[in-house]
Amino acid sequence: MLPPSPKKPPQNKLGLSHAFLQCADLILPWLTPQELANVSLTCKTLHRAAHSITLYRSLDASRSFENFPIPFHNTVDQYPYAYFFYTPSQIIPSSSSSSSLNRQFWGPNSSQTLVLPDSGSSDAEMGCTLDSMDLLGGSWVSVMDESGCECERCEKVSEDNVIGCPCMELEGDEGMGIRSECGPSCGCRLECGNRLSQRGIQVQLKIVKDVRKGWGLYAAQWIQQGQFICEYSGELLTTKEARRRQQIYDKLASDDHFSSALLVVREHLPSGNACLRINIDATRAGNFARFINHSCDGGNLSTVLVRSSGALLPRLCFFASKDIKEGEELTFSYGEIRVQPKGSKCFCGSFSCLGTLPSEHT
Amino acid sequence: MLPPSPKKPPQNKLGLSHAFLQCADLILPWLTPQELANVSLTCKTLHRAAHSITLYRSLDASRSFENFPIPFHNTVDQYPYAYFFYTPSQIIPSSSSSSSLNRQFWGPNSSQTLVLPDSGSSDAEMGCTLDSMDLLGGSWVSVMDESGCECERCEKVSEDNVIGCPCMELEGDEGMGIRSECGPSCGCRLECGNRLSQRGIQVQLKIVKDVRKGWGLYAAQWIQQGQFICEYSGELLTTKEARRRQQIYDKLASDDHFSSALLVVREHLPSGNACLRINIDATRAGNFARFINHSCDGGNLSTVLVRSSGALLPRLCFFASKDIKEGEELTFSYGEIRVQPKGSKCFCGSFSCLGTLPSEHT
Repeated sequence: MLPPSPKKPPQNKLGLSHAFLQCADLILPWLTPQELANVSLTCKTLHRAAHSITLYRSLDASRSFENFPIPFHNTVDQYPYAYFFYTPSQIIPSSSSSSSLNRQFWGPNSSQTLVLPDSGSSDAEMGCTLDSMDLLGGSWVSVMDESGCECERCEKVSEDNVIGCPCMELEGDEGMGIRSECGPSCGCRLECGNRLSQRGIQVQLKIVKDVRKGWGLYAAQWIQQGQFICEYSGELLTTKEARRRQQIYDKLASDDHFSSALLVVREHLPSGNACLRINIDATRAGNFARFINHSCDGGNLSTVLVRSSGALLPRLCFFASKDIKEGEELTFSYGEIRVQPKGSKCFCGSFSCLGTLPSEHT
Repeated sequence: MLPPSPKKPPQNKLGLSHAFLQCADLILPWLTPQELANVSLTCKTLHRAAHSITLYRSLDASRSFENFPIPFHNTVDQYPYAYFFYTPSQIIPSSSSSSSLNRQFWGPNSSQTLVLPDSGSSDAEMGCTLDSMDLLGGSWVSVMDESGCECERCEKVSEDNVIGCPCMELEGDEGMGIRSECGPSCGCRLECGNRLSQRGIQVQLKIVKDVRKGWGLYAAQWIQQGQFICEYSGELLTTKEARRRQQIYDKLASDDHFSSALLVVREHLPSGNACLRINIDATRAGNFARFINHSCDGGNLSTVLVRSSGALLPRLCFFASKDIKEGEELTFSYGEIRVQPKGSKCFCGSFSCLGTLPSEHT
């Protein structure tokens, strides 16, 4: 996935910087040797500090939020890392989060606390009104599953023949890319066998820059088929907001090397008439999954919609659809539809490559 | 002459600097890559600018005020130049100049304009009241010289037998270390043959640091006996102010490696009873002459009090008392009296060295 390329500073910023240095040229000669030495030492130290932060950032895209560091590798150009707001789980944009997404602590001595907008915040708090009818209304059909989950409570429930664990209300059709897990309303803890996608990454990964594809996610170890890779986190958008943003992104992409990371997932319900749709935008805020590139042959990852018992919103997760070698790129299919035949070029390199990246009317 | 050694920053300044860098550690991780790159570039540029100013200063002690640059050479320690307020001619301290002496532009693109306190400023303007009776009262006896000076006007005057050029009122007893030159009240210009000490330096010099003596002035070319070297410029003090400062300097010298550059010159008048005394302090403000070290054998410079026609104050100047080789140190005798037998050690290296530097009750 082509991340937004680092922008060149606008002309006025360069001008400001130039003015600042002209100013320095006027002031520095007035300083005593001690003051000059202080300026010199301070600048040297600040320069080094800035450099060490750059190094620190390039060593872990995840800001220590994940179980393992996910380093950047770039032998293509001079940008050692990609900059984005890191969120290990999905967030709902609100007017307050919209501005707070512009800045995030990313350096040594990070307190590693991340103030996230409350996922349960009311519609009124959100910058874009939650298109709740579209998102939730009638689509999130829960079907009773007789077996329940693997958690202690469910086992107890099954034994006692008393319906108590809420996760039993969830459907678990994994063949359809839908998975049910225990959640907040279950009594079990994170160690529960049915919370596979909630314990963070369990495999070593790295983000590598390719001269044609841009950044991509690669395996830094052998990965077994079926293993959980990661959640695709980002801003969970209403369809209305997703359409609004897609228009902006399409405009930016035509002007610049800008590339968005807005993922739309549709789930056709058994009736065949209704369609569940979720829109996750990792363009500004997301996790390392935003770097996963498309492959026309479907790649080596499968997307699974994971619903946790008691959680309002499902999560889009990636699992290995086949064994993955160390150093292999992780990819999945962005979709089948290409409404822009002359859209962005695809460099997936698969035998079945169609030459352009998927595109559709959002 | 041992210049004041560069002081180490006081503890609180180090603390402030440490606090500043701690602050930077908190702020820098919040910056975007572009902002971080700006900080990095700005700091790198400022660091280089500070370095280039240090280099520039080490290449010319005179801030381009003299005809030739007078470079510093230091292979002894890490301080590439000595810092002081440069004044090519003597100044009279005033309350306003006292604070302005703390800071002077010294770097590339210098406008080379030096706002000097007005030498003709009234006593009321001066920080220390001009002890005018002591400085001027009755001591500055002018004796008519029949020959006049070499200036065009004097020549014309001689021809016309009309007394008109004021320089004819000056005495020119060069054997006594006193010299009369044309001055502001003469009609002649700087090219006049009787303005030898007013055209600035005519020989190449350099300031070299010696491990024992500190900075010293050296010839960077062969110099002929009798050649004008330079004026000893600095703050022209009243005897009262000179005594006050000497007490402070003596105290500082006992605590630290501090060394003053307060020169007291006495001229015994023909009567034998009166004594003309001038006090020039180049500790804070002066020219490169402040670096001339003492030699017990009288060195290779002679001090000459130069009076210019129409100028209120005489100037203390140095002339070569013998031929001086390139690379030879320029020295003169600070005096004969040693009131502190265990005073500062002398390292003049002459056969007649007395082991300590001259000292007297000011």
